[in-house]
Amino acid sequence: MLEDVSRRIGRNAILLAFTNEEGELSLKKELAKLGWSYCQGKVGAMELQKIVAAIETSAKRQGIVNHDVYREMHALYHAILEAVHGITRGQVELGGLLRTAGLRFSIVRGKPYEKEAEGEWIAVALYGTIGAPVRGFEHEAIGLGINHI
Amino acid sequence: MLEDVSRRIGRNAILLAFTNEEGELSLKKELAKLGWSYCQGKVGAMELQKIVAAIETSAKRQGIVNHDVYREMHALYHAILEAVHGITRGQVELGGLLRTAGLRFSIVRGKPYEKEAEGEWIAVALYGTIGAPVRGFEHEAIGLGINHI
Amino acid sequence: MLEDVSRRIGRNAILLAFTNEEGELSLKKELAKLGWSYCQGKVGAMELQKIVAAIETSAKRQGIVNHDVYREMHALYHAILEAVHGITRGQVELGGLLRTAGLRFSIVRGKPYEKEAEGEWIAVALYGTIGAPVRGFEHEAIGLGINHI
Amino acid sequence: MLEDVSRRIGRNAILLAFTNEEGELSLKKELAKLGWSYCQGKVGAMELQKIVAAIETSAKRQGIVNHDVYREMHALYHAILEAVHGITRGQVELGGLLRTAGLRFSIVRGKPYEKEAEGEWIAVALYGTIGAPVRGFEHEAIGLGINHI
Amino acid sequence: MLEDVSRRIGRNAILLAFTNEEGELSLKKELAKLGWSYCQGKVGAMELQKIVAAIETSAKRQGIVNHDVYREMHALYHAILEAVHGITRGQVELGGLLRTAGLRFSIVRGKPYEKEAEGEWIAVALYGTIGAPVRGFEHEAIGLGINHI
Amino acid sequence: MLEDVSRRIGRNAILLAFTNEEGELSLKKELAKLGWSYCQGKVGAMELQKIVAAIETSAKRQGIVNHDVYREMHALYHAILEAVHGITRGQVELGGLLRTAGLRFSIVRGKPYEKEAEGEWIAVALYGTIGAPVRGFEHEAIGLGINHI
Ligand SMILES: [Mg+2]
Ligand SMILES: [Mg+2]
Ligand SMILES: [Mg+2]
Ligand SMILES: [Mg+2]
Ligand SMILES: [Mg+2]
Ligand SMILES: [Mg+2]
Repeated sequence: MLEDVSRRIGRNAILLAFTNEEGELSLKKELAKLGWSYCQGKVGAMELQKIVAAIETSAKRQGIVNHDVYREMHALYHAILEAVHGITRGQVELGGLLRTAGLRFSIVRGKPYEKEAEGEWIAVALYGTIGAPVRGFEHEAIGLGINHI
Repeated sequence: MLEDVSRRIGRNAILLAFTNEEGELSLKKELAKLGWSYCQGKVGAMELQKIVAAIETSAKRQGIVNHDVYREMHALYHAILEAVHGITRGQVELGGLLRTAGLRFSIVRGKPYEKEAEGEWIAVALYGTIGAPVRGFEHEAIGLGINHI
Repeated sequence: MLEDVSRRIGRNAILLAFTNEEGELSLKKELAKLGWSYCQGKVGAMELQKIVAAIETSAKRQGIVNHDVYREMHALYHAILEAVHGITRGQVELGGLLRTAGLRFSIVRGKPYEKEAEGEWIAVALYGTIGAPVRGFEHEAIGLGINHI
Repeated sequence: MLEDVSRRIGRNAILLAFTNEEGELSLKKELAKLGWSYCQGKVGAMELQKIVAAIETSAKRQGIVNHDVYREMHALYHAILEAVHGITRGQVELGGLLRTAGLRFSIVRGKPYEKEAEGEWIAVALYGTIGAPVRGFEHEAIGLGINHI
Repeated sequence: MLEDVSRRIGRNAILLAFTNEEGELSLKKELAKLGWSYCQGKVGAMELQKIVAAIETSAKRQGIVNHDVYREMHALYHAILEAVHGITRGQVELGGLLRTAGLRFSIVRGKPYEKEAEGEWIAVALYGTIGAPVRGFEHEAIGLGINHI
Repeated sequence: MLEDVSRRIGRNAILLAFTNEEGELSLKKELAKLGWSYCQGKVGAMELQKIVAAIETSAKRQGIVNHDVYREMHALYHAILEAVHGITRGQVELGGLLRTAGLRFSIVRGKPYEKEAEGEWIAVALYGTIGAPVRGFEHEAIGLGINHI
């Protein structure tokens, strides 16, 4: 584990997913100082493809990834998929198993390793609730995916 | 999602997994005030059964679960398994795929719902790194499992 | 394994799934004598969510679970999911893989353990056929999920 | 589903797995009358390979399959794997997740379909308990795998 | 591994999936000489059921399998499913995870083993690209499923 | 799919996995002309970690990846895991399910896309047999994993 907590890209992404545009201001300042980019968003759906799409769209619009370069979209896609595993915990499926998710997400892009050669990495964090399509019949879930980019 | 952030059992578990005995003191005070129980620990292994065992042992020793009652151990076990999915993201395996994990964990037991009938729930959070058995060749991972108990 | 065969909740659930309202009368008497509740039903679908919904609806209507309490619905949901694994055997999917299932199901709720502290458990059993959407091009499948409630 | 209940190979296999050499005598007579072969056994293990091996050995020794013909062993192997999914319900693993299983198994080989061209099929049924390596801390599980042979 | 390369049914199927009706003519001659049957096709879809259906339809129309016999369709179906795993690599899903596949496929039916008793086997090979629903944002994927028939 | 067949990195990797040091000489010349690197190897094992290790070791020794840079090892590792899915087709396990694999593998690193910004990618191909630990009781299997590096 990195000694330098401020460069823990996954932890940072999760803290951002716990909050919204107004929260974690000191963390955001730190990320800005490091020259890292990040964005936050929110999505509720019974279809995983809508969740994937919402995260990809946010990452493109906020300029976290270059949407003209497949290499970048490929890195992001696999990070999203890995994060989804933490949310679904066994069956990568929502509505098909009669459940729905309401999630906040964040994406962080930066250089978490000290060695320059390790370059940039991307972290996708998801946090929210999963459960029956009945108000309040849900519990929390979290997911984190990390990839080199 | 619960309006009352302090009762978000999963979020609380994750914040505890981010820290150690000395950290998150105000959160711990809040949990104590709510009458919830929790514990924290640390485990590094290439075998998932060691991780499961470390969490179960900690939960028993710290009195989070009653180890004489299978019902409680069953609730804990499935919460652990669900948390492991977030760490392994697809293949529930470590050493068998030549990878190792170094994790902090936490367990929180309490009443996250307003309705008394919803009773007690248990959350297991895992946070740390996963990667090759080579120092520094690893990235972060997180997992959360929640169950009624 | 419980010595007392009559309290084997999973075995009971499967025997009920093998039959209909008219069958297994002596078993039903025994369950009644134990004070356990149970119900039976039938569902055919290419969508797993319809199977999940049919079982949940039956459990609510027959009063096996209290549909106002998420805790009870959560216990039932995970028991259903576990039962579905036995039916799908690897890919938790039906129509998306061009196959369909015709199933009888049963739900049993009772106290299978001798110790009072073990409380109530729920068993969901599924039995029927799975196969191509072509009459007769199918073979049998079974599934059982058990959870504390 | 076959109208003729006596030829439901999966149901027959499960009923055999519920019992031992002394049980289900009328079913066994019926199977003998149909010219079907079957065997029963028992295995407890924390390693899935021991369970697979016990079933394969029993099938070979009792002459249910011809152990000189890979084709037959291949059919049996995949039927075993499918049955194991019902037991493990999501993670095809026992000891690696700190759990153990005590199972009765049965294998039935016969012609469940009316059309002669459908030939022989094989069913593997597993029934028993799965749980922590602690006496009594376990619940029931069932699995069924069916294959053409 | 078979010494006789020409009878490697999986390798043959993959080489056919790499090409179209005009390619691999010497391989096709060899297959004809062995008395094996085969077919080739092409399918692009975001739904796995369309891919399964395209392969099944092709196998029936080209007479590789007898569509009146469930036994043959069962053997083919499981070979297709196994091949799909190589394409999807972890989550047996396409559109539900916002990805699409463009595939060539081939089916080969023959006797790959020297012993007569091993009889006929079927191989399904898939080769093409998988990726985002954006032109060029995709990479190659391959899958092979083999079954006794 | 790339029009230019010679730059199909996955297809190239598979053709190399079909052969040994003496085979596919014209393909190897083409790869050399493109400035791509590749290596080939062979591994038989009942433990997936041995297969992962053999591929990683070969890639490091032959200079396909820089073993001092985690980023490169991470890209390789995930490509290996994806290739393994094609071999195991559902359960990422060998000996634990009483089966063994004898594989040839290849690794190719190059620039499969026309746009310079897409940079380097890595392909891992596996081809061989999987089956019971009994000589000849096995069938072919293939796997391909592709990642940006
Ligand atoms: Mg990784
Ligand atoms: Mg749950
Ligand atoms: Mg359980
Ligand atoms: Mg089948
Ligand atoms: Mg096989
Ligand atoms: Mg990819």
